[in-house]
Amino acid sequence: MSGGVEWALHCCVVLTTASAPVPAARLAELHDVSGSYLAKQLQALSRAGLVNSVQGKAGGYVLTRSPELLSVLEVVAAVDGPQPAFVCTEIRQRGPLAAAPEDCTRPCAITRAMASAEAAWRAALRDVSVADLARGVDEDYGPTALAGISGWLAVPDDRSGDSGGPAAGR
Amino acid sequence: MSGGVEWALHCCVVLTTASAPVPAARLAELHDVSGSYLAKQLQALSRAGLVNSVQGKAGGYVLTRSPELLSVLEVVAAVDGPQPAFVCTEIRQRGPLAAAPEDCTRPCAITRAMASAEAAWRAALRDVSVADLARGVDEDYGPTALAGISGWLAVPDDRSGDSGGPAAGR
Repeated sequence: MSGGVEWALHCCVVLTTASAPVPAARLAELHDVSGSYLAKQLQALSRAGLVNSVQGKAGGYVLTRSPELLSVLEVVAAVDGPQPAFVCTEIRQRGPLAAAPEDCTRPCAITRAMASAEAAWRAALRDVSVADLARGVDEDYGPTALAGISGWLAVPDDRSGDSGGPAAGR
Repeated sequence: MSGGVEWALHCCVVLTTASAPVPAARLAELHDVSGSYLAKQLQALSRAGLVNSVQGKAGGYVLTRSPELLSVLEVVAAVDGPQPAFVCTEIRQRGPLAAAPEDCTRPCAITRAMASAEAAWRAALRDVSVADLARGVDEDYGPTALAGISGWLAVPDDRSGDSGGPAAGR
């Protein structure tokens, strides 16, 4: 799994607290990370339709739906792609005792076992929403933690010469 | 997940059919793959104690226990290591609103969600044994498939100048 997943999930949780679009540069400042690196993750979320990039001086990123309806699985798939971790290369069709391709319409026993485990992993991530993650932060740090982030986001960053909107990262 | 996992699992299934130690070169020939590449996976299984490398002219690899007691998870961990796919880098401790390290003794909500999904994945792979995989092959191809491999393994490979035992791959 790429490190981008962790950043994307943190950004989504932060966006649940925002009352207005959040520029990529502002998210990068909050997380003390390179803006160009974070922009890459935000663009992946945007391509998957999970965030929307609002243009203009007050522009930035917003979640496209209620965080209750945004699953962790969707964020992971947006950043790392939907392909399975285990990729079958049809080893059974190799060598002197190779199975004939026409006898290999069903995935092999090994692939079935791996696919079943990945389905369990996906189901677990589908069951957790970004709203659940935000509630987890409140559980851990009390109700002022996310409210503090919300307040920080609401104060414009005067140190930046421009809005730092998402267009800069495109 | 590395491609080595797939090769290692196929080798373990093949070893369930063997009545004697199987040289790495013979496993490589059966799978039509580079002997040195396969030796790397077999050595990982050996380091994890899942196979034993029997030395000598009639040497080769054997499973160290009943395939009923050898889980797919153990094979995966032997090849790819036991570390989780998601690695938390403590993003919550970064930036102007960083959580204090002393307030971060519990994994964060994101890490908990990812760890829970990985636990579901591991549990699914722990529930499948190499014997289950071998039964799957019989289900797919009938009882002659693995028996055919067993017979092929029992015939010495005259084309090789030596036994092709595991020592050659070390």
